[in-house]
Amino acid sequence: MTITGMRVTPIAISDPPLLNAAGLHAPYALRTIVELESDERIIGLGEVPGGETTTRALEVARDVVIGRDPYQMNALRRDLDERFGAEGTQPRGESPWDKRVHVHVLSAVEVACFDLIGKATGRPVCDLLGGRVRDRVDFSAYLFYKYEGAGGELGFGTDLDARGWAAARQAGALDPAGIVAQARAMREEYGFASIKLKGGAFAPQEEVAAILALREAFGPTVPLRLDPNAIWKIETALEVGRRLAGVLEYLEDPVRGQDQMAAVARELEMPLATNMCTTSFEDLPGSLRLGSEQIILSDHHFWGGLRASVELARICRVFGRGLSMHSNSHVGVSLAAMAHLAAATPNLSYACDTHYPWQRDEIVAGGRRAFDDGAYVVTNDPGLGVELDREALDRLHRRYLECGLTERNDEVEMQKKQPGWRFEPVRW
Amino acid sequence: MTITGMRVTPIAISDPPLLNAAGLHAPYALRTIVELESDERIIGLGEVPGGETTTRALEVARDVVIGRDPYQMNALRRDLDERFGAEGTQPRGESPWDKRVHVHVLSAVEVACFDLIGKATGRPVCDLLGGRVRDRVDFSAYLFYKYEGAGGELGFGTDLDARGWAAARQAGALDPAGIVAQARAMREEYGFASIKLKGGAFAPQEEVAAILALREAFGPTVPLRLDPNAIWKIETALEVGRRLAGVLEYLEDPVRGQDQMAAVARELEMPLATNMCTTSFEDLPGSLRLGSEQIILSDHHFWGGLRASVELARICRVFGRGLSMHSNSHVGVSLAAMAHLAAATPNLSYACDTHYPWQRDEIVAGGRRAFDDGAYVVTNDPGLGVELDREALDRLHRRYLECGLTERNDEVEMQKKQPGWRFEPVRW
Repeated sequence: MTITGMRVTPIAISDPPLLNAAGLHAPYALRTIVELESDERIIGLGEVPGGETTTRALEVARDVVIGRDPYQMNALRRDLDERFGAEGTQPRGESPWDKRVHVHVLSAVEVACFDLIGKATGRPVCDLLGGRVRDRVDFSAYLFYKYEGAGGELGFGTDLDARGWAAARQAGALDPAGIVAQARAMREEYGFASIKLKGGAFAPQEEVAAILALREAFGPTVPLRLDPNAIWKIETALEVGRRLAGVLEYLEDPVRGQDQMAAVARELEMPLATNMCTTSFEDLPGSLRLGSEQIILSDHHFWGGLRASVELARICRVFGRGLSMHSNSHVGVSLAAMAHLAAATPNLSYACDTHYPWQRDEIVAGGRRAFDDGAYVVTNDPGLGVELDREALDRLHRRYLECGLTERNDEVEMQKKQPGWRFEPVRW
Repeated sequence: MTITGMRVTPIAISDPPLLNAAGLHAPYALRTIVELESDERIIGLGEVPGGETTTRALEVARDVVIGRDPYQMNALRRDLDERFGAEGTQPRGESPWDKRVHVHVLSAVEVACFDLIGKATGRPVCDLLGGRVRDRVDFSAYLFYKYEGAGGELGFGTDLDARGWAAARQAGALDPAGIVAQARAMREEYGFASIKLKGGAFAPQEEVAAILALREAFGPTVPLRLDPNAIWKIETALEVGRRLAGVLEYLEDPVRGQDQMAAVARELEMPLATNMCTTSFEDLPGSLRLGSEQIILSDHHFWGGLRASVELARICRVFGRGLSMHSNSHVGVSLAAMAHLAAATPNLSYACDTHYPWQRDEIVAGGRRAFDDGAYVVTNDPGLGVELDREALDRLHRRYLECGLTERNDEVEMQKKQPGWRFEPVRW
């Protein structure tokens, strides 16, 4: 089997005005879709956080990818590393999202190779990773403080006739009552058991109040998480951690960097989780030496692909780290890849994060993927189990070209609401 | 694809009287061959160190294995762990070889599943592990002190007409000159570049003399290793390590257990390697905490299979351990599995060990595998690239039934030469 074609398509998907430590989500989130076509005319799909830089890097990667056998992932990875050299080693940056381009290139290509192999052999991707340990992959309700509006072409206003999640998705949520209402609507629509609140948007005591309101509303059997994206001081993290002891399942990235995380971890009984301070294999020795977190939020988009994530899972088993899964705004290719990885990961002991309920756009045939009582059901369909809706892809690509956004920048978007607002790596 | 048949065949292969810390190789080495047959009538092969206990455990495993899909290795592993329960957690023991039965059961079944999948999809096993980073897998010349004789049915005497390796294989080698002659003949026959001497058979100063004679004979460009199988005291290890500084590529298991290995590692500049003190994922945290060795000799037979070994390789990359490969007496199925694993392992930076030149028996079609200038060439043939010679298998199985050996016991064999000889875990 030979890869004869590679198509790289940046797209823009409507995204609501969600608040986070770095500012505000723009009306469109950017993704880049990779299609690898084989000499047998089979197409394998990959999806990663997008924008101009990643798309350009994927275009550069084409020369390395074309003519390859998709099974030869080790050699492909080596040659991509060589092709990009020092360019491939930039840091992740201070933003909540990972700014490394090279790891996303590797992931997009590797996932598309797995999808190709799966489709060529009639096997679901999870089977190529050691086989499923679960058919149902649980996801969590991912709550955001937000301004009113549904994002992008879906509009900024509120549809007064909307009910349930359709209404809650558009509604503002800027206080505990708003967050509880959002949680209720999302859980009713999707059936998610666990709840995660994206914090770092308001003063810590307000976010603590929101968590306590969620506990009050849903009771102690619903696991809760809070993620301020490393924007707190150590004292703040300790105060919140003590205040929410026994309330949170885990506290995500309360502070910045492994040293500070370790300082907090030493004092708190509550487990800490990260997708910011331990985000690559190179970070793992420091993580073990310092004890910077108890749980790693894996993400195949920035850990270098699915096989690398299986290896990360083994490392978590060996060295006593819990394992959960991180998400960015995404469509159905990433959702399927996350679910197949989770299905084949014995020690994925927490519900995975997903932004999926916040988006309405989709590029896979059949449209939006369904959740069954909070779970994505991994079928035996070949590959990732999704095919492209090319018309939808083309439409979202045109929107990318027209929307004027080329890279994610939540600061600029926030400044439209609060002139002069600046991202601060440590705010409270 | 469903596994509809499982055939477990213990065999006995002729093995010369090779000396080691635990005594003397018996005239026959025991292996167990596993055949998994699919509903498509494809047969996948596995091979592990054999004997009655492992064979019986594999027979018990049959109930769990039959009816499964070979891709579902995660679930199969979970169910085999459950089936064997506490039985599956025995220690490796103090012998040079690993006495854990359960890990060998897991490996035999997993390798046969990979071979099945490879043969069903027309893909070499290395491609199912991420693809090849090399076509040629280098092996080392594995020297042994030995008594005269060729082992088993091949006889105990010396064929006076034999030349080269055929003669050296039968000849005694009990001093530096004998070891150098053995090395020269094996290297001329096989083309191996690196040399490993199995030590622990004679007083350390004699083995040091043999290493120095090898250096003298072959010069500084030929990497040398020495493996006394943990039979030395710390003082002895330090003395030998200092004496052979700059002469050995690495020193294998000079002392017993991670604590003692760490004590030696702290004092020596020479890297230490192990296949005795760090032999499972459970041992890795201790290895890192103590710094018990610089190089792990992986072995898919007792690390739980090929995918587990790929994961071990990642751990070695992440935590700065070198990676080499351990061997026991074996035939062509294990040789092929070792080579496919090595072909797909980016950081296998040393020549692999193999006992293969010491045996003459073979169970794969076409007979003994060839080495090309010291390397096993991994082809694109499906699966492991080997098929059974059923007649040879049947013959070696009959020999197993007739030879009277049921478990490896080098002490008993040594007592035939030196009455009253006892294995001592720490001798010098």
